[in-house]
Amino acid sequence: MPKDGQQTWKTRERSSYGRNKGAGRGRPPARAGARAQEAEDGLVRLFGSHAVEAALRNPQRRVKRLLATENAEKRLADVIAARGVEIDRATPLDLDRILGPDTVHQGLLLEAEPLPLPVLDDLAERAYELGAPIVILDHVTDPHNVGAVLRSAAAFGAAGLIMTQRHSPPLNGVLAKSASGALDLVPVLLVQNLARTMLELRQKRFVLLGLDGTAEARIEDESFGQATVIVLGAEGKGLRELTAETCDRLVRITTAGPLASLNVSNAAAVALHTAAVCRVK
Amino acid sequence: MPKDGQQTWKTRERSSYGRNKGAGRGRPPARAGARAQEAEDGLVRLFGSHAVEAALRNPQRRVKRLLATENAEKRLADVIAARGVEIDRATPLDLDRILGPDTVHQGLLLEAEPLPLPVLDDLAERAYELGAPIVILDHVTDPHNVGAVLRSAAAFGAAGLIMTQRHSPPLNGVLAKSASGALDLVPVLLVQNLARTMLELRQKRFVLLGLDGTAEARIEDESFGQATVIVLGAEGKGLRELTAETCDRLVRITTAGPLASLNVSNAAAVALHTAAVCRVK
Repeated sequence: MPKDGQQTWKTRERSSYGRNKGAGRGRPPARAGARAQEAEDGLVRLFGSHAVEAALRNPQRRVKRLLATENAEKRLADVIAARGVEIDRATPLDLDRILGPDTVHQGLLLEAEPLPLPVLDDLAERAYELGAPIVILDHVTDPHNVGAVLRSAAAFGAAGLIMTQRHSPPLNGVLAKSASGALDLVPVLLVQNLARTMLELRQKRFVLLGLDGTAEARIEDESFGQATVIVLGAEGKGLRELTAETCDRLVRITTAGPLASLNVSNAAAVALHTAAVCRVK
Repeated sequence: MPKDGQQTWKTRERSSYGRNKGAGRGRPPARAGARAQEAEDGLVRLFGSHAVEAALRNPQRRVKRLLATENAEKRLADVIAARGVEIDRATPLDLDRILGPDTVHQGLLLEAEPLPLPVLDDLAERAYELGAPIVILDHVTDPHNVGAVLRSAAAFGAAGLIMTQRHSPPLNGVLAKSASGALDLVPVLLVQNLARTMLELRQKRFVLLGLDGTAEARIEDESFGQATVIVLGAEGKGLRELTAETCDRLVRITTAGPLASLNVSNAAAVALHTAAVCRVK
């Protein structure tokens, strides 16, 4: 049990649907059915208004089944009609039973295929077209944080997100809910070897900026005049050694208070905002 | 049941300890004991390494009882010795039972008195001394978000946080955990009438900046050369009408992507960072 350590991220990662990390510890495993099904059929389950709406609006997202309450169907009537998807009527309690009572599903559960993964070349091209940075998360395992980073990536117009296949949360339920629709707006690439991907990006003339609270250089002094990758590590641990070494330079976010550490999603928001302001100016 | 609406914040607010909003809906109410006790004895319960450590380091925080596992005690040995507090030995399972199995307590539970609330004059003076902004949250009810805002307030050196007595989450468990120690670093003032407090701050020559995604003016064009209050509303709803009207001006954060809305804690981080960079330059 990692409960007694500082392993907040890992502990939370175990819960991929709701926030119920107690499942399997003597409580009835409310989501076990849905989870086992996911493993078998390869589908992802998305819930919550923004996440489901964005998926329905995304032509690349292949929809299998939409469960909706009467109220939720009314709210999304236009989108549902445009997509031409049949509704499986459900009650809030039905969805509670499937997703676990901890889940804020807002009357909606969408079963769909995972999005096709982009390739690195496409992502790099997109970054050049948009003049926007790519974000790399180095072993950030908490789905709420990764979802929040995706949301900021969509708000500040990042070209995409790259994470490792392992030590990253699944691209479904909780992450999609936190992303508030951004999972269907921002391309996410999963790679086996992050350092190798970083080197490939450098060959494509990206500058690799690693965020590190102890760095001397400040991110505010960057001009973002060149194609940029912003690299963030897990909270507490920071960037892994090889990841930090592979960066072109390490920069810190200017802080001015008694607490040195920022939440990773807040750090990402500040970094992406700093880059966006340089572009928009 | 607000489950089927867009009431994420309100729904979540009900859970003041863990993330178990299902309590009272047929599941054993794991935290009911601790909660009832809190209501009766007026004490707050803090858990998690950073929150408990910050409370122990804060001479203003009057400590009643510290429950700690053996490992947790070892981690905080110096702080515990400096504070001279006795330990009630607990197992992780004991703490699970008290706080509910959803709670990441990291082996620590501190029972303490609430902090003495600052008065507005003190907060204003602190802002002038530090040359730092005050943050106002207008009916932001989610404890995770308010905690995250406090954490950013500590990182970027804000002078304090003001919220309404009602429609704000309690200053304990979940909020303190999300604040990662900042609850014991940043003064929090609770007021009955927010508009009146804002007018008092204007009389003290603060400029009141309201964040509004639809505003024309940009926060990046502010110089922060004057004592400033940054006012943020709840996600989705934004600032209440009277709150917006009471601001000196409304400003937006520059975004550059397909998703317009920022999470409130990310918006606060970006705004506070923008102000901090102006100060530090």
